[in-house]
Amino acid sequence: MQNYIFELPMEVRDYECDLQGIVNNAVYQNYFEHTRHQFLLSKEISFSELHRRGIDAVVVKVEISFKHSLLPSDQFSSQLTLKKEGVRYVFYQALFSRDNKILHASARIETVILVNGKLGFTPELDRIANEANAL
Amino acid sequence: MQNYIFELPMEVRDYECDLQGIVNNAVYQNYFEHTRHQFLLSKEISFSELHRRGIDAVVVKVEISFKHSLLPSDQFSSQLTLKKEGVRYVFYQALFSRDNKILHASARIETVILVNGKLGFTPELDRIANEANAL
Amino acid sequence: MQNYIFELPMEVRDYECDLQGIVNNAVYQNYFEHTRHQFLLSKEISFSELHRRGIDAVVVKVEISFKHSLLPSDQFSSQLTLKKEGVRYVFYQALFSRDNKILHASARIETVILVNGKLGFTPELDRIANEANAL
Amino acid sequence: MQNYIFELPMEVRDYECDLQGIVNNAVYQNYFEHTRHQFLLSKEISFSELHRRGIDAVVVKVEISFKHSLLPSDQFSSQLTLKKEGVRYVFYQALFSRDNKILHASARIETVILVNGKLGFTPELDRIANEANAL
Repeated sequence: MQNYIFELPMEVRDYECDLQGIVNNAVYQNYFEHTRHQFLLSKEISFSELHRRGIDAVVVKVEISFKHSLLPSDQFSSQLTLKKEGVRYVFYQALFSRDNKILHASARIETVILVNGKLGFTPELDRIANEANAL
Repeated sequence: MQNYIFELPMEVRDYECDLQGIVNNAVYQNYFEHTRHQFLLSKEISFSELHRRGIDAVVVKVEISFKHSLLPSDQFSSQLTLKKEGVRYVFYQALFSRDNKILHASARIETVILVNGKLGFTPELDRIANEANAL
Repeated sequence: MQNYIFELPMEVRDYECDLQGIVNNAVYQNYFEHTRHQFLLSKEISFSELHRRGIDAVVVKVEISFKHSLLPSDQFSSQLTLKKEGVRYVFYQALFSRDNKILHASARIETVILVNGKLGFTPELDRIANEANAL
Repeated sequence: MQNYIFELPMEVRDYECDLQGIVNNAVYQNYFEHTRHQFLLSKEISFSELHRRGIDAVVVKVEISFKHSLLPSDQFSSQLTLKKEGVRYVFYQALFSRDNKILHASARIETVILVNGKLGFTPELDRIANEANAL
């Protein structure tokens, strides 16, 4: 059981559903990415601003388990925590129903920091990962 | 090393690239899904037709490794093979540069067949998986 | 100058931006559609529920003027009003900055109601359009 | 009746369809954009390369008429021509069934060229527009 350190209320938009009438699998990556970037913003780190400074957070591996399909107008809570594993910043993420009773999907997202194209790090993320690990 | 049994030539579209100037991670799932559905069509199995008959192929787990970013106008070859593992149909997929020298991304996609919402199977997919395993 | 009858606070998500670093033009249609569907929901009309009952709201014409590009993390207000023009339900929509001082884009979206594939109408929408016209 | 000067064979991908089982309206803008960029590439003009040089083609107005819904696996021909109207480069675009008998959608897309953020032009596009007008 994870201790999530950030939570974003979200809601399914109809255009995100495919011909099966459920949220298309690829859209979950949109949800997870948006949550990571909002988490960073909450720490005053802007993904697009980092990019302009030549610092890119790049996803190297994604694992997603789909448990209960998200349906049109479903409201859910997108949660995450962060661990540093070696040179990688790993996000553990999950989408729960608003009452936390249904797990729609969970994910493990490995990212690295590239500074001008070379493997690097950001002190802010290290600090956040340390704080999260201490919980 | 996989023996892929299906190959689809594809090409990056500019709108699939994000503010980092590379194909957004979620779009890889679009590529993988489209390749699976084209593979099924090549076997005369239509995903949308299955859905109308109450048979749904549903993704339960996705693992994607991102190796070399796809860039605007990149042409690539999307390849797959299929194995049946227990009740699951597992697609092993990869995106290579056209000359097969660069691996952009690889994936393992677990799917199940739901018939009117209950776990089921399709004889056609079983036959295809058997043929692929025999290679 | 329109009198808008519905307003939805929205915010740019990074994955909606393309390699120019601005929101891709197609995404504005996502914003406009989501706003219409949320408007309908606020009137207790569900687009997906209508579809299940054989009633489809279908867009027949779209006109969008792009004024000021939306940028990563921009917060904006998506506003709309509705008029019935002949058999068509026409939505007038606009995206403003939160303080209403910048107009990012405006749109005129013509829709028709198909009931089991034939041109129809819904009393609820007629009532709403009448109320909006009376403002 | 337009004399189209460029044609791109395309095909609907299942993930582009929404819960109505038809291609979502916003996706038509993806089709139109991709066709414009492929057209430019056929003239050895790269949209992403232009962007890196500080030259951005920006859409200022879009008008789309939706005639016959595109369905899963539909194959179609995306066609365009280009006119210069004042400072604007205007693309007239249409999506036809492969036998040209069904018009799925038509569009008029106004674009301007921004050079380092200021209204500009590109000699290549002017030449192409002149050639197209002469047909």
